[in-house]
Amino acid sequence: MSPTRTEATFPAPIVASRRWIEGVSFPADRPLINVSQAAPIDPPPEALRQAMAEFILTVPQAHLYGPVLGMPELRTALAAQIAGIYGGAVAPGQVAISSGCNQAFSAAIAALTGEGDEVILPTPWYFNHKMCLDMAGVSTLPLPCGDDLIPDPGRAAALITPRTRAIVLVTPNNPSGAEYPAGILRAFYDLAQARGIKLIVDETYRDFDSRDGAAHDLFTDPDWDRTLVHLYSFSKAYRLTGHRVGALVASPAMLLEVEKYLDTVTICPSQVGQFAALTGIRTLGDWVKGERDEILARRAALAQGFARLDDHGWRLKGLGAYFAYVEHPFDLASEALAQRLVHAASILALPASMFVPAQDPSGMRHLRIAFANTDRAGIAEMIDRLAALRL
Amino acid sequence: MSPTRTEATFPAPIVASRRWIEGVSFPADRPLINVSQAAPIDPPPEALRQAMAEFILTVPQAHLYGPVLGMPELRTALAAQIAGIYGGAVAPGQVAISSGCNQAFSAAIAALTGEGDEVILPTPWYFNHKMCLDMAGVSTLPLPCGDDLIPDPGRAAALITPRTRAIVLVTPNNPSGAEYPAGILRAFYDLAQARGIKLIVDETYRDFDSRDGAAHDLFTDPDWDRTLVHLYSFSKAYRLTGHRVGALVASPAMLLEVEKYLDTVTICPSQVGQFAALTGIRTLGDWVKGERDEILARRAALAQGFARLDDHGWRLKGLGAYFAYVEHPFDLASEALAQRLVHAASILALPASMFVPAQDPSGMRHLRIAFANTDRAGIAEMIDRLAALRL
Repeated sequence: MSPTRTEATFPAPIVASRRWIEGVSFPADRPLINVSQAAPIDPPPEALRQAMAEFILTVPQAHLYGPVLGMPELRTALAAQIAGIYGGAVAPGQVAISSGCNQAFSAAIAALTGEGDEVILPTPWYFNHKMCLDMAGVSTLPLPCGDDLIPDPGRAAALITPRTRAIVLVTPNNPSGAEYPAGILRAFYDLAQARGIKLIVDETYRDFDSRDGAAHDLFTDPDWDRTLVHLYSFSKAYRLTGHRVGALVASPAMLLEVEKYLDTVTICPSQVGQFAALTGIRTLGDWVKGERDEILARRAALAQGFARLDDHGWRLKGLGAYFAYVEHPFDLASEALAQRLVHAASILALPASMFVPAQDPSGMRHLRIAFANTDRAGIAEMIDRLAALRL
Repeated sequence: MSPTRTEATFPAPIVASRRWIEGVSFPADRPLINVSQAAPIDPPPEALRQAMAEFILTVPQAHLYGPVLGMPELRTALAAQIAGIYGGAVAPGQVAISSGCNQAFSAAIAALTGEGDEVILPTPWYFNHKMCLDMAGVSTLPLPCGDDLIPDPGRAAALITPRTRAIVLVTPNNPSGAEYPAGILRAFYDLAQARGIKLIVDETYRDFDSRDGAAHDLFTDPDWDRTLVHLYSFSKAYRLTGHRVGALVASPAMLLEVEKYLDTVTICPSQVGQFAALTGIRTLGDWVKGERDEILARRAALAQGFARLDDHGWRLKGLGAYFAYVEHPFDLASEALAQRLVHAASILALPASMFVPAQDPSGMRHLRIAFANTDRAGIAEMIDRLAALRL
């Protein structure tokens, strides 16, 4: 029998890594530092939790099905927010709300591809993107980034075939942290437009970009929705990972296709999650700026720390938003190292082998560190442990 | 270019039907009776809403990612509940929680099938099941039910080919309302087991079955998880449609496959939804019994009403849980009739054409009425309007 959809891909890396720490008891003086998953560890601010509780208690619609493409007020608010940030015109009818940004990606792939089609994915990639493509029967065309972890549009152009339907970019990047220059995004956009394919840009970590102002000018093209598919997540900005709410921004025609997928898979997104996202947009702008400042401070601490680790053979290759992408000095494959780190240093980080094709040797040499999960003291402690590490 | 996944299927019928009432103003003395979607229209009971609000305010985990396969306490509670209802042994490791029961079905199909495989679906079918199979690249083998709306295992046996991976049953049925006899379920189970394929039984409407006791004995087979995949929804029992929480019950080996899909599509179900479902199982057993009594009373009202409509040429063909499946007397295709009913009677019901293959003439003659959405007064009013209808 041929493999099923799920048999065509690998086990979820986050789940596999969680099993490495199951049943492990960490020394009291060396508790676990978990930098495996990009996930805020604190709840949303008190005022937002109060608003959500009030919504649950007093608004019957909180508990009922809503429109497949999301709460109209949230679609309107996000459209206005995106227009404000990036310039250009974005209409509510170009916005769909999804049950998290992973689902936004899955919906985009379902709307854009069929069996045997191809999608270009820079490596290192976000593993759930690769899993989604595998399960969709889509061939992934890996686009290896250079040492700067920035993908090259010229190299992408050479990969495109008549079966290629889209190029996927993630910026700031998961797993590498790289913040793609606006000119690179523009070059990819022009390439996609010229070749009649879509450019999917996942900006889940947008709110923590270290650069001020718009990260790109693609929305200022009046015809942006003929080429661009923009993905976003409310999970990181407002600490709503447990509520599953993301967004897909594209042409109204594409959203009619997306609607079929979302209706079939989940009917509608969580109403409470959508209300929280809406309240976040309306009231938490300044608070998110403070969150960004804190994450930028952690980023600085991580950079300083790795400067200290230079003598130990560690190299900081990528850094931005939630992630650092680092080269390790050990004569050990990254997956084995990651498991050793659990026991030898009480650190859980993901091996780069989870983010590259099996045959790519760079997977052996790198780790992803989701540093934003840990405060500056935790980062300093992690650096100390890595400096002391003898394997 | 070949069609994309979503282009391979039809627009979501619920969405299409909502558009029929967009911008329509209904007379003040004849407001809309919406019997299109199976959706409780009242919020959950006050005590459950209070518990959810408390959870949001005081439990940080309410807002954070949880395990892909769901909250362990909920998996344990549902396993115990199923074992209690059906007899037999069900372990927490055989239960996965999903973002609604549609997603449970999508996950089952992803785990069990690949491109070009086949699944047997009795007709009339639940349209989202057909859409899911279309998007998965799976050929649907329609199994027409008889006039009693019960599928025939012998007829199913004749459809099975080497590419057939599963048979899907929904009981109580959506759209027909039919409550499948235990012996029919057993015969399908034996057939699936003998042919080495899976039997997927969607029991979303289980809690409103008019029969007392277990609806089948399949869980009493010690090896049930080699053949049976059981689907369930918390949405109807506890009025949680807006929170997206369902379940898939199968072998631990199959759940490892399901986990890949759920991780990639939504990462985890809503924590608030899961907490509400858990609280429902723990505290709302008697309340659900009262809900069932009310729905059975509505069912009786619907049956009485259609007896009155007999003289007008209407025929009640199926009745159970949330749904009535009725034959209409007009010389008009059901889809045209459904749209006329909006304007002529302020009634929104779905045409059977949404539940059968395009070439099946029975689709022209029937409507699905989600009567459980409307109280007895509303049902009586609907019957009056249908009796008075002249087209």
